[in-house]
Amino acid sequence: MDKLIITAAMVGAEVTREAQPNLPITPDEIAQAARECREAGASICHLHVRNDDGTPTQSRDRFQETIARIREATDIIIQVSTGGAVGMTPEERLQPVSLRPEMATLTCGTVNFGEDVFWNGPRELKAFAKALKVHGVRPEFEIFDAGMIANALQLADMELVEPPFHFDFVLGVPGGLPATPKNVLYLTELLPPGATWSVAGVGRHQLPMAALAVTLGGHVRVGFEDNIFYRKGELAVSNAQLVERVVRIARELDRPIATPDEARRMLGIPR
Amino acid sequence: MDKLIITAAMVGAEVTREAQPNLPITPDEIAQAARECREAGASICHLHVRNDDGTPTQSRDRFQETIARIREATDIIIQVSTGGAVGMTPEERLQPVSLRPEMATLTCGTVNFGEDVFWNGPRELKAFAKALKVHGVRPEFEIFDAGMIANALQLADMELVEPPFHFDFVLGVPGGLPATPKNVLYLTELLPPGATWSVAGVGRHQLPMAALAVTLGGHVRVGFEDNIFYRKGELAVSNAQLVERVVRIARELDRPIATPDEARRMLGIPR
Amino acid sequence: MDKLIITAAMVGAEVTREAQPNLPITPDEIAQAARECREAGASICHLHVRNDDGTPTQSRDRFQETIARIREATDIIIQVSTGGAVGMTPEERLQPVSLRPEMATLTCGTVNFGEDVFWNGPRELKAFAKALKVHGVRPEFEIFDAGMIANALQLADMELVEPPFHFDFVLGVPGGLPATPKNVLYLTELLPPGATWSVAGVGRHQLPMAALAVTLGGHVRVGFEDNIFYRKGELAVSNAQLVERVVRIARELDRPIATPDEARRMLGIPR
Amino acid sequence: MDKLIITAAMVGAEVTREAQPNLPITPDEIAQAARECREAGASICHLHVRNDDGTPTQSRDRFQETIARIREATDIIIQVSTGGAVGMTPEERLQPVSLRPEMATLTCGTVNFGEDVFWNGPRELKAFAKALKVHGVRPEFEIFDAGMIANALQLADMELVEPPFHFDFVLGVPGGLPATPKNVLYLTELLPPGATWSVAGVGRHQLPMAALAVTLGGHVRVGFEDNIFYRKGELAVSNAQLVERVVRIARELDRPIATPDEARRMLGIPR
Ligand SMILES: [Mg+2]
Ligand SMILES: [Mg+2]
Ligand SMILES: [Zn+2]
Ligand SMILES: [Zn+2]
Ligand SMILES: [Zn+2]
Ligand SMILES: [Zn+2]
Repeated sequence: MDKLIITAAMVGAEVTREAQPNLPITPDEIAQAARECREAGASICHLHVRNDDGTPTQSRDRFQETIARIREATDIIIQVSTGGAVGMTPEERLQPVSLRPEMATLTCGTVNFGEDVFWNGPRELKAFAKALKVHGVRPEFEIFDAGMIANALQLADMELVEPPFHFDFVLGVPGGLPATPKNVLYLTELLPPGATWSVAGVGRHQLPMAALAVTLGGHVRVGFEDNIFYRKGELAVSNAQLVERVVRIARELDRPIATPDEARRMLGIPR
Repeated sequence: MDKLIITAAMVGAEVTREAQPNLPITPDEIAQAARECREAGASICHLHVRNDDGTPTQSRDRFQETIARIREATDIIIQVSTGGAVGMTPEERLQPVSLRPEMATLTCGTVNFGEDVFWNGPRELKAFAKALKVHGVRPEFEIFDAGMIANALQLADMELVEPPFHFDFVLGVPGGLPATPKNVLYLTELLPPGATWSVAGVGRHQLPMAALAVTLGGHVRVGFEDNIFYRKGELAVSNAQLVERVVRIARELDRPIATPDEARRMLGIPR
Repeated sequence: MDKLIITAAMVGAEVTREAQPNLPITPDEIAQAARECREAGASICHLHVRNDDGTPTQSRDRFQETIARIREATDIIIQVSTGGAVGMTPEERLQPVSLRPEMATLTCGTVNFGEDVFWNGPRELKAFAKALKVHGVRPEFEIFDAGMIANALQLADMELVEPPFHFDFVLGVPGGLPATPKNVLYLTELLPPGATWSVAGVGRHQLPMAALAVTLGGHVRVGFEDNIFYRKGELAVSNAQLVERVVRIARELDRPIATPDEARRMLGIPR
Repeated sequence: MDKLIITAAMVGAEVTREAQPNLPITPDEIAQAARECREAGASICHLHVRNDDGTPTQSRDRFQETIARIREATDIIIQVSTGGAVGMTPEERLQPVSLRPEMATLTCGTVNFGEDVFWNGPRELKAFAKALKVHGVRPEFEIFDAGMIANALQLADMELVEPPFHFDFVLGVPGGLPATPKNVLYLTELLPPGATWSVAGVGRHQLPMAALAVTLGGHVRVGFEDNIFYRKGELAVSNAQLVERVVRIARELDRPIATPDEARRMLGIPR
């Protein structure tokens, strides 16, 4: 079984400091959280940035500054979000890609998302894939529903993306596919040979989905973007606390944890 | 195994007479096609209407006239589309519902659809379900991807829809879930107890998906909306021709065909 | 999709002429039935033989005579049973293999079988595989339960059998795996790449399992060994009648029927 | 999710002290191991007994003495094996049932088992079920292959067993179903509503199967009968050590551990 890649989704676009007082917001806070997560065992940080007032932004400058701080703090792989916040324009969402981060997410379609709709229409999907290719950024395919895997494979057919392919199943969003073990197993069976996958369970599903992925040979995403609680009724004290638990589970199962450089090799990221 | 309900999707919004010379367009043509399909074994006609020039419309008047003609011609169940054509507004698409047809489709979410996006956001989804309820119209849940089943069940939790529930899996649309036997079986396993389901395979998938549904105890949708060929390279001569083949397959398998009244009882449509 | 291989299991070890008056028993009757099945579309006959009084036997002489008659009558592939009748010794069951027929069955384990136990223990399994190999006979792996596929693959690991591998799922025997679509799909997903498979549904499951296999790209076994009825309450008039129905279903689905020589190529049988 | 029932299979019939120096053999040793496992979190001990020389026996006296010692030591549920060792007669294997233990295993069929065959033919299966019923012993259905679930359900149809039903999937025995997540999920989907299940992975599969069961809401069997190692190359120091690890995993996942009395309620064992 491959070494375990843990992605820390520390910020997101929707969580507020009112809901989770330990949410990192400024570049310094985010860089420190990234370092803590790396020390705990994460090899990727999935990155959103915020304005000083906590509102979400896809500002190139803000990403640039935050990435610089993270780079000073730790060797973790930086994966920028191109999802941004619901309602942003495609152009807005694509801004951080020109900074040539090592990875970026590529959500493989359009789907109801809570009370909104997350939009990556066929045109945007191709345009985003091309932008990543032009800037040498490795994609992580974000999969909110089963059909999105076929969309990703279509990009591969068009040679807009290149193997090895890495998928992230984001499960439990109202409007998308629910976070059940059956769904996870099913999705893995739709993947092409050689693909790697992780799962991000939303809310109370984060922990069971993470444990399932550790057991099945998949990878794991945890962090405040998807879940702010350590357990029912108990807020997490930090993103790193959520990473630490996954690491303890992996150790009980004798599954080693990938360092950032080991993850780079697995994901085809040149260093 | 239940008697087989065959739905004839005779018109759609996208097929042209250039592509399929036998496409029914006028109210009279559609009514005649409905009668032929009924005689061949269909118990539901899934109804779109067209302007005289062949362009798609959701005009209440045009639906009213077409429904009147069908009613004169045959006792088939009339199921109006609320999907309309991609790009239409929700209000436009909802127009035929106030005519109180026996059934209407309710597409359970938003999804990439060829080069476009089919939109039923969370708000529209609830609004459409309410409109159907207000007018006493039975919904058929249109499922383009696996997560849409959860959306339908959420409407049930909100008591915006009432059992028995009937689902139609539309498989093979680029952007949605591919038309594979594995996907069909998987979708059926996500349904609540007592639900019925049919499958509409797009293009060359229409026939194998239909045969699979006959075998599994599901129901079948065929017609020009989803597929214009009888076999590779050979255009179908009529919608009824596609229905007839499904009937022959069902007969070989000793599965009886439901009449419209039998289908009404199975689907909870009062008569 | 591959051309359809239909296997006629015309005789079996348990059916009596009291139960099915059209059961072929003598070498001549069996040869005539084989010719009829071949003309109807079968490319393999799965062969058991009987004594003149109708009791089952694995007698080498009786097999030799019967095979000679079949060879005079038709070019169908002859697949001898090594299962024989429940209660026979392994040595008894193996007798026809030394006649070097083109194929023989190899049941991949031990399983409850009605009120008896069908026995191919680990030792017998290896011995049978070796005997087939020594005599140049191509195996068909008979699978009564899911774990038997792993047993077959273990024979492959030991190089006692050689690809291409062909499996036959015998479903619906009390004691073995039930004949459900879910089970068929599941079994196919356990097969190695490049393997072919057929399904033999027992009793009333013969027809739906056959239709499912036609649809899924598998192959089909029908005949009196597994089922004596044409439909509920109506005895079949001949084995060929059961083959003919499968052929009609395949034709409706535009799936061509394999000739014996085409089947030989697909199954790796030298000619 | 139900509280977690951990079964300690401490002895088995095949493990030797040469292979695992900490194997409990005498009644006192077994009772002490049961107490340690109970303290670690096990609520059931799956019981085999041995002669003083370590050879397996189903002797009623030896069971009686061992059960008495366990009863003095702890309140753990005692589940006697009726599988015994391969090669024992059915009568031999059934002996401990007349001691009226709270539970006994009931292997639901016949299957290749390593280089041997484990035999519970249709007759034995019914006879064993009746014996358990007569003595008021709750069965645990031992499932080595998928078809065995259907056999268990047939016993239920004959009213030889009564709900609630508890299944144990023993996976990874050569000859039976391999220990894969897909197989576990599949087996759970064949169970009747209300059934509970545990999984016993053999050898190196014990740990991943246990973690999977904890995650899926199933229950867990660990112990020297199925696996003697703590991790690759490192023998376990005690059965309790294997239980402790499962408990730690469950705690990380916030899944509470069932006490013996809680397990009795879940399994329908009167106290
Ligand atoms: Mg979708
Ligand atoms: Mg078996
Ligand atoms: Zn994000
Ligand atoms: Zn439509
Ligand atoms: Zn046979
Ligand atoms: Zn045991």
